[in-house]
Amino acid sequence: MTETLTDRLSKISTATLTTVLLKKGFRNIWLRGARPLRCSQPRIAGPAFTLRFIPAREDLATPETWSAPNSTRAAIEAMPEGCIAVADALGITDAGIFGDILCARMMRRGVAGLVTDGSIRDIAGVLATNLPAWCGGAAAPPSVARLTFAGWQQPIACGGVAVLPADIIVADADGAILIPAALAETITSEAAEQEALEAWIMTEVEAGASLPGLYPPNAETKARYESSRAQGG
Amino acid sequence: MTETLTDRLSKISTATLTTVLLKKGFRNIWLRGARPLRCSQPRIAGPAFTLRFIPAREDLATPETWSAPNSTRAAIEAMPEGCIAVADALGITDAGIFGDILCARMMRRGVAGLVTDGSIRDIAGVLATNLPAWCGGAAAPPSVARLTFAGWQQPIACGGVAVLPADIIVADADGAILIPAALAETITSEAAEQEALEAWIMTEVEAGASLPGLYPPNAETKARYESSRAQGG
Amino acid sequence: MTETLTDRLSKISTATLTTVLLKKGFRNIWLRGARPLRCSQPRIAGPAFTLRFIPAREDLATPETWSAPNSTRAAIEAMPEGCIAVADALGITDAGIFGDILCARMMRRGVAGLVTDGSIRDIAGVLATNLPAWCGGAAAPPSVARLTFAGWQQPIACGGVAVLPADIIVADADGAILIPAALAETITSEAAEQEALEAWIMTEVEAGASLPGLYPPNAETKARYESSRAQGG
Amino acid sequence: MTETLTDRLSKISTATLTTVLLKKGFRNIWLRGARPLRCSQPRIAGPAFTLRFIPAREDLATPETWSAPNSTRAAIEAMPEGCIAVADALGITDAGIFGDILCARMMRRGVAGLVTDGSIRDIAGVLATNLPAWCGGAAAPPSVARLTFAGWQQPIACGGVAVLPADIIVADADGAILIPAALAETITSEAAEQEALEAWIMTEVEAGASLPGLYPPNAETKARYESSRAQGG
Amino acid sequence: MTETLTDRLSKISTATLTTVLLKKGFRNIWLRGARPLRCSQPRIAGPAFTLRFIPAREDLATPETWSAPNSTRAAIEAMPEGCIAVADALGITDAGIFGDILCARMMRRGVAGLVTDGSIRDIAGVLATNLPAWCGGAAAPPSVARLTFAGWQQPIACGGVAVLPADIIVADADGAILIPAALAETITSEAAEQEALEAWIMTEVEAGASLPGLYPPNAETKARYESSRAQGG
Amino acid sequence: MTETLTDRLSKISTATLTTVLLKKGFRNIWLRGARPLRCSQPRIAGPAFTLRFIPAREDLATPETWSAPNSTRAAIEAMPEGCIAVADALGITDAGIFGDILCARMMRRGVAGLVTDGSIRDIAGVLATNLPAWCGGAAAPPSVARLTFAGWQQPIACGGVAVLPADIIVADADGAILIPAALAETITSEAAEQEALEAWIMTEVEAGASLPGLYPPNAETKARYESSRAQGG
Repeated sequence: MTETLTDRLSKISTATLTTVLLKKGFRNIWLRGARPLRCSQPRIAGPAFTLRFIPAREDLATPETWSAPNSTRAAIEAMPEGCIAVADALGITDAGIFGDILCARMMRRGVAGLVTDGSIRDIAGVLATNLPAWCGGAAAPPSVARLTFAGWQQPIACGGVAVLPADIIVADADGAILIPAALAETITSEAAEQEALEAWIMTEVEAGASLPGLYPPNAETKARYESSRAQGG
Repeated sequence: MTETLTDRLSKISTATLTTVLLKKGFRNIWLRGARPLRCSQPRIAGPAFTLRFIPAREDLATPETWSAPNSTRAAIEAMPEGCIAVADALGITDAGIFGDILCARMMRRGVAGLVTDGSIRDIAGVLATNLPAWCGGAAAPPSVARLTFAGWQQPIACGGVAVLPADIIVADADGAILIPAALAETITSEAAEQEALEAWIMTEVEAGASLPGLYPPNAETKARYESSRAQGG
Repeated sequence: MTETLTDRLSKISTATLTTVLLKKGFRNIWLRGARPLRCSQPRIAGPAFTLRFIPAREDLATPETWSAPNSTRAAIEAMPEGCIAVADALGITDAGIFGDILCARMMRRGVAGLVTDGSIRDIAGVLATNLPAWCGGAAAPPSVARLTFAGWQQPIACGGVAVLPADIIVADADGAILIPAALAETITSEAAEQEALEAWIMTEVEAGASLPGLYPPNAETKARYESSRAQGG
Repeated sequence: MTETLTDRLSKISTATLTTVLLKKGFRNIWLRGARPLRCSQPRIAGPAFTLRFIPAREDLATPETWSAPNSTRAAIEAMPEGCIAVADALGITDAGIFGDILCARMMRRGVAGLVTDGSIRDIAGVLATNLPAWCGGAAAPPSVARLTFAGWQQPIACGGVAVLPADIIVADADGAILIPAALAETITSEAAEQEALEAWIMTEVEAGASLPGLYPPNAETKARYESSRAQGG
Repeated sequence: MTETLTDRLSKISTATLTTVLLKKGFRNIWLRGARPLRCSQPRIAGPAFTLRFIPAREDLATPETWSAPNSTRAAIEAMPEGCIAVADALGITDAGIFGDILCARMMRRGVAGLVTDGSIRDIAGVLATNLPAWCGGAAAPPSVARLTFAGWQQPIACGGVAVLPADIIVADADGAILIPAALAETITSEAAEQEALEAWIMTEVEAGASLPGLYPPNAETKARYESSRAQGG
Repeated sequence: MTETLTDRLSKISTATLTTVLLKKGFRNIWLRGARPLRCSQPRIAGPAFTLRFIPAREDLATPETWSAPNSTRAAIEAMPEGCIAVADALGITDAGIFGDILCARMMRRGVAGLVTDGSIRDIAGVLATNLPAWCGGAAAPPSVARLTFAGWQQPIACGGVAVLPADIIVADADGAILIPAALAETITSEAAEQEALEAWIMTEVEAGASLPGLYPPNAETKARYESSRAQGG
């Protein structure tokens, strides 16, 4: 029985994935300003479910809009299980896009995590929901103090990265990265190879090896690695 | 025969309009980073035609996309006469969204002007087209060096302001402001009144009057103003 | 016997208070850059005691000024028990305004906490004093490396918010907020109501309820809440 | 009959003055963000008259405050002839502190100029008043959209520099600088000497001299300069 | 007789050059913060002569260092005719790296221009020297108020771009760009082609053509262009 | 047997050292953006080993360069035991300069710690190496996504501070500071005195003393301190 892409990605660090993405020409796929909310969060991976905010305007950003059909509440009810909610908050961190109630509902719906270049609010409550989150911190004011919700499943900017619905997001202690949907399989396979190689290099360093010729490996090192691998090393 | 809203707005400064908007509770309607390209540009007014960019991604932002059906080229061909193109460039000013050829085409189509929180490119060529423009400066690189075009006539952020298609834009030497579509008539009428009052106050200041009681006018000053006005002053 | 305002506020999250303040038209009352120094700090509330800095100038900002009658030392001796010291450090975070000795003295005087958009210094020592603090981090250099002390109990800017002496400050894990003195009673009462409602909504979400109609509550939900409340729920 | 300090300073560039100030240990006396409003403005010099703003708060920053006893209007009426108004606008440039009417009144009162790290508004009108101004640009919104006026003749921060009432301000095409009041005479005398020396060095450079030994002058160059000067060169 | 590379580049806009560079994979070759000092400056092109600054430190950045063997003065005397001085000022714009005397000497030595992400000082004097310059503005304080000179002809960062000695710099009204030395010939040839094509497209737009299929040209448009060109159009 | 400078410095807080440095005229010796990676890191002290990056350029910043003779790998092999690696990453924090393998090798070589204004990558792996580090956070992308390595043991800028090879670095919970090599002995001696004085003052504050006259100490307080000291207090 085959592992899902999500399962495979959950074993590969975002550091390794970005190295492989760079080799394919991708330099701008790390979402700035989305830091892990907790030290101990597990790595998550899944398809992006995008949310989009524009700036607050006094006639558009009001508590009344929270009851509108195109509210953040409706967006959350549209999120499929296993998705990662990615919210473009314009990098605005002095209002919180979601608090404990919305995060509890996302957790309940099976959302894998929340990634945003904005802030969350009621951080104590959000921590209690156990929803994995990557964000710019916590801020007390409600979203409408600074933001107007503009819709979901549109292309967005998040942390300076273009995110399309269905692109793959992976997030761990080094932050959140994007893999373009079309490349997900290739990148995952190559990254798994790279991860194994780097683990072996680390054992060499721990054994006292010096870096030149080892990392990246020259032909001689590659041969040693292949040999070690053939022997189940 | 009645004057159009556009004609009436072209006689009112954005400074006066924002004072009236503030009195209605609107504090966030000035588009940051959109400075007049030329000193001598006339004031323009008209409905917003919105353009939206997201960050460049190596697989999305390529010169090839300039030929795609959803390109900036197609957007320009959809612009109605008299509109003001408002482009959300994420405040990115190290690439130019439009150069001389696109601006020449906009001018030809009767677009009233271009407003963006990004840059233009080939500034010498753009100046030659005579298209009025408010922007963050000039930068040589093409848009795709930093931006991916995401579509038109969507709600956007521009200079930290929420802009919806059909909102009214007015731009002059003090920059570009937004009037929510639903309030355009009211704001324009009140602002015309305010403009007349301030012109009279200026003559008083030039005649040596001191400010307290004059600006804003107290009851006595208001009476003098009404009297002057009744006399055709 | 009645609870003090401070006691009542210590049971209401800043997230709830800012929601109520927004409904009264206040969008700019969260002090940017003042993050909790410790994860475990209790919520604090109390009247602001303001401190003001201006930039360092070589003839004004010297260690000698620490002995002057208008020094930070004199300001600390003027702080009443239960106040919250709020320091306008111009958002400058590469010098620390107070270290362990000054914080120990504030603690000794019964100051409820320190809130600043600047940094503290000697963070290990400050942590040892147990003074609750919200700040922009820690920096080794003394205040005079970057700042000149300008006085106390004046109106100040702190984190982009206007703070007047006697305004009420509340600070918790979501940061520090201001309640204008004149509104403190009203806001506190309404926020206590809101806090109770949100706690009930959270139990509904945990029970599997979906968000639309629940949060914010529609008429039917409100009726259910009132009924639950009447039953002591 | 002796020249006034102001007259003497009006003949010395801010570049030369800052070089002399640096030699006395002053590195932080150039007001950031205060650019000349016009290319052709003459150099101005005079004592600072300080104005102070704090951030806007919905209950404090309203058009009604323009009629209050402690308004900007009252401050302007308190400005003495020949002073330079220096306004701490917190570096906020998306609202204009003063427009045409206030600037016209300042001009009428004989104010030598306006220096601010904020913006002016109604730039067309302000240009028409002929008031020399150094500022961060033009913005349509009124001050109360972003700022609350807090008083005058207090110590302020402006462009990252501490300004006390009566410090001397000099502004020209290189921006605005501060000379601490107590040092004004000394700095002016030394700067006049430096200005004369640099004029002579410039003629040497124009005649083809190379820089080492010339600028700064070594002993031999200094001797040549003194000799040239003795001959009325 | 063949034209020099410099002569050929002086006829191609930086906008066109960056389009060609992008097609080769170069997105980061526009030097941020280096704006033309005058509106009327001609385009310049030439090899980079790099200058490097690090931050000021009280023991390193002193007027005395202006006489040291490794001073900016010595660097200027090492500049060959036709080079473009490119100075890494760390993007610091509150001190001026060069004033009128140094610029006059550069002009005298035949330096083609100055490009920096910092400021110049004594702008009136620098304008009088006629040295073409691209910079972040003007600031009165001397370089040593904020910067320590670190040497010349080293790899530098300037405006976020890596510049190596001998890389080619082209600067015009759209700012300053870099062409890696090894690619200069190829880029120049392709850009000259592109410039001719765009000139023809502009005549089509002026004649009323719409953009799709024209810019970029589809096969039919390309054929028309080639035909026009064959006829000497 | 005498203690080494490093041993003596490891007992003095960076807060005390910067106070002493300020009294010698040094205001700019705290490296901005270099925060401790762990809460529990011990204070470190040692001579700087400098590393320099410039911005990424598509032809220079490639994974291939990791095998070049002037790579970061070669730099690490040149680091002497006990040095502190100080890396100028231009303040760029959206790529990580070093990951687990390079940090493990540095640890193995006896490097005392890493200080940078950039980020590290693979933070989980770096934490596992136990290398003490001060940095701007963690980011998944490899250095070449944003940076080109330019060499080692050159003068650098790090966090806005000029660092020369062999300057002394001390880092603790308040961040990392620089002591110019020539002053290391003097500063260390005076700081040890200051540290002892402040410890005594702290006991006074804990005993209830008020600040004026105590901190800084007036003549009477100094006498009490000397007396206490003479008694072995």
